[in-house]
Parts: sequence; C-alpha cells; structure tokens
Amino acid sequence: MAQPKALLFDVFGTVVDWRTGISNAVAEIAKKTNHHTDPEAFADAWRALYQPSMQEVRDKKRPFTILDVLHRETLQTVLSQFSFPEISAQDEHFLVTAWHRLNGWPDASDGLLKLKQHYIIAPQSNGNIALIVNMAKHSKLGWDLVLGAEVVSHYKPCPDAYRIACEKLGLATGECMMVAAHNDDLAAAQAQGMMTAFILRPKEHGAGQKTDLKAEGAWDYCADDFLDLASQLEADR
Amino acid sequence: MAQPKALLFDVFGTVVDWRTGISNAVAEIAKKTNHHTDPEAFADAWRALYQPSMQEVRDKKRPFTILDVLHRETLQTVLSQFSFPEISAQDEHFLVTAWHRLNGWPDASDGLLKLKQHYIIAPQSNGNIALIVNMAKHSKLGWDLVLGAEVVSHYKPCPDAYRIACEKLGLATGECMMVAAHNDDLAAAQAQGMMTAFILRPKEHGAGQKTDLKAEGAWDYCADDFLDLASQLEADR
Repeated sequence: MAQPKALLFDVFGTVVDWRTGISNAVAEIAKKTNHHTDPEAFADAWRALYQPSMQEVRDKKRPFTILDVLHRETLQTVLSQFSFPEISAQDEHFLVTAWHRLNGWPDASDGLLKLKQHYIIAPQSNGNIALIVNMAKHSKLGWDLVLGAEVVSHYKPCPDAYRIACEKLGLATGECMMVAAHNDDLAAAQAQGMMTAFILRPKEHGAGQKTDLKAEGAWDYCADDFLDLASQLEADR
Repeated sequence: MAQPKALLFDVFGTVVDWRTGISNAVAEIAKKTNHHTDPEAFADAWRALYQPSMQEVRDKKRPFTILDVLHRETLQTVLSQFSFPEISAQDEHFLVTAWHRLNGWPDASDGLLKLKQHYIIAPQSNGNIALIVNMAKHSKLGWDLVLGAEVVSHYKPCPDAYRIACEKLGLATGECMMVAAHNDDLAAAQAQGMMTAFILRPKEHGAGQKTDLKAEGAWDYCADDFLDLASQLEADR
C-alpha cells in the first residue's frame, strides 16, 4: 500500500477524552457554586450543541467564528438547561477553557511521538488554534504544526476543510491520511481522496457508547490506538 | 521583567542559514548544467528580490500569494540575470524547494527545544506553511505550531502580520516576544506592543556582512544565539 506523507487527526474523542475533562470541570464549578447537577449529562448536553453551533457557519448564516466563541455561546444554553445560578466571568472562562486542558487517551502522547518519526502529524480539528496549542502543551501532544478549522476557515465535514488542509502542506489529498474515531469524519475525508485510519475509542461517550464501535467503511487502516496504528504502518513500510 | 508566554521567530537568517543552503543548491544545478556561475552571488541576487516580490502583496496589487510561488517567479529573473541556459522543471523544483531544506544554525535545534519547555514556540515567518514544515522536519526544529504569513494572510512587516499572529494564540501582543536577527523586524513587532529579542547572526550575509551586527533599538533581550536567550530568560524567571 502507498504510504501517506502526512497524518491529519481528528482531536475531540480521537486524541483526547473530552467527556471526562469537561465533566470534571463542570463538577468543580457545581461544587463551588453549591449547585446539584449531573456533570456527565452536562458534558453530553454541551457537546450535543457542538454540531448545530458550527452548522450556522457551514451554512454561511454567520462568518467563520472560532470554536472558543461558539463554546461560550452554547455554554449559556446548557447552564440554563441545567438550572445553574448565574456564574462569574471567571468561572465561565474556566469552563470554556476546560476544552483547552483535556487529557489525551493513554496512548496519545507516545503514539504521536512514534508516528512523528515518519510522517508529518497535524490536528485537523474544529478546535481553534489557541485551544489546540494549549491542549498540546497540557497533554504533551507533539504536533509538527496546527492545521484545523481556523487555518482553513471551514468546519469539518465540509469538503474544503479536508481539501485546503492538504493543500497547505503542499500535498495531494491522496498523500494525506485522516485519522479519526468517527466513521462520518473518515467518509468525508475519503470523499476528498484522502487515505483513512479508524481508531477505536469505545469510551468516548462513556460506558454505554453505541456509536463508532466498529469501522463502517472501507478504511485503509483500523487500529485499537495510535501505537497499534504506528505498528501497522511500520509493517507496510 | 514580565515573562512572555509565546516566542515568535523570524526564520530566514534567524533560525536557518539560507545563504549557504541556497548557494549549495545553485552550485549543484550549475555543475549539472555545466554553467559557470558564482553561487553565492546568485543566492544574494535571489534574496534581493524577496522584499520587492512581497511588496506587491503588501500594496494589495495582487492577492495574497505564498512564498513558494513568489520564489518560483523571482527564480526566473535571477536565472536570466546569471545567463543560465533553460533548466528543466525538475531542476526548477529542486531550486524552489531548496528553501524547504535549509539547515539551522548550529544552536537552532537544541535552543528551540530548550525554549519550548517554558514557552509556546512558533515561526512567524514570511515562508509558507509547507516550506516551514518541511524545513522543520529536515532540520529538527521542534515548533509547537506554524504561524506566519500564510496563516495570517499578511507579510511582515505589516502590523497585521504581528497582531493577528498573537491573536491566533489567544494572547495579547505584550504576552508574545518576537525573536529575530533583524532590527527592522523587531521594530515593527515592538510597534505592535510585542516584546523583542535580538539574536546576533553575523554570518547571515557571509563574511562581509554589514547590517544587523548589533542591536539598534531598545530590545528586551539581546543574545548570541538561542541557547544564550534561553539562559537569559531563565535568569529572569
């Protein structure tokens, strides 16, 4: 099999465990404000507003807006849904930037380092640049560069999000491989000619996860984690 | 002194030795095509067209155009100036991408690694993303991310080139320090409120260098190389 020159990664769910990180941050603010809530349900509800908030940008109903701003907006909705009392600007900032402090899955840091020896590695995430850089410093994710929505001005799964990211690297889409724990992300990347690698992340949505528990397309690689992907790529080199 | 959170680097001359790298590539093509030429004079002449080629973009006489394209255009002028016979598309590609394969100054790789332990480090270069990423892989420059002209759509020393780069990191200009071997680059960065560090690179233009042999402004730091800068920053922490 032809080898990719660059690996582009989905981040939320594929590289980092957003649900645990956000739940913990919500629990901290709930405790501080003496408000009884279910932190995991809060995290799920916040994440459920993620796609709709980007859809307005995809539909060109508003100009490109970075994810930090969308997160700040949707946070207000969820706080209200969960009947939180008004929180301070400082606590709001703490919650919005909790997305900057998410921890990698156990294999993430070492796995990326291993992959970096042979390929350009970059996040192609919907997260904005500052979010992704702060997360990388926090969780030791050794990206070669940060691509993603803010660099290409398009949110996945728009075709341009994948196409322009490859172009920025001076590479054809066929020379780049999308790495994601989500079948729909891989389908959109494959439609642009990218190679694809599915990573199984069965706990992204907690113990009762029902989606993305297996590969649902003809992906080039299917791996249990980044170390497994590195081994499979090595075997094909 | 307040500490910066991010260090933004000029690249050509500050991090890498462009003159030696380009001269060597030109010498290779001259030998191959059996054409007698002065490779260092050729490199200097090519570099002399660098600022004028970007000026058309700065003056909005043409849309933002990446440096690889400008290098390809100016190469034709220099080949003609130096009376080269027509070269192949492959040799042209070799020369244009010689800018992707420049070697770092001896302290560059280790110095950046040391600085990276405490600060976000990113190139804020006029080089395009692919050029900077390929160079980083070639010369082991461990950037946290790639900023620069292609990310901010402005060429230095336009104020927006510095201002937007800091904004992408979610930081105020005063929280970012421009690191450069060129006094004019630092002056433009300082005018936007950035901290500044001058790095002495007395051989950038060869043995007879006449410019940037000393700090010519009130810069926050003046250092002999990146390791010296790391030590000075450490002393102030």
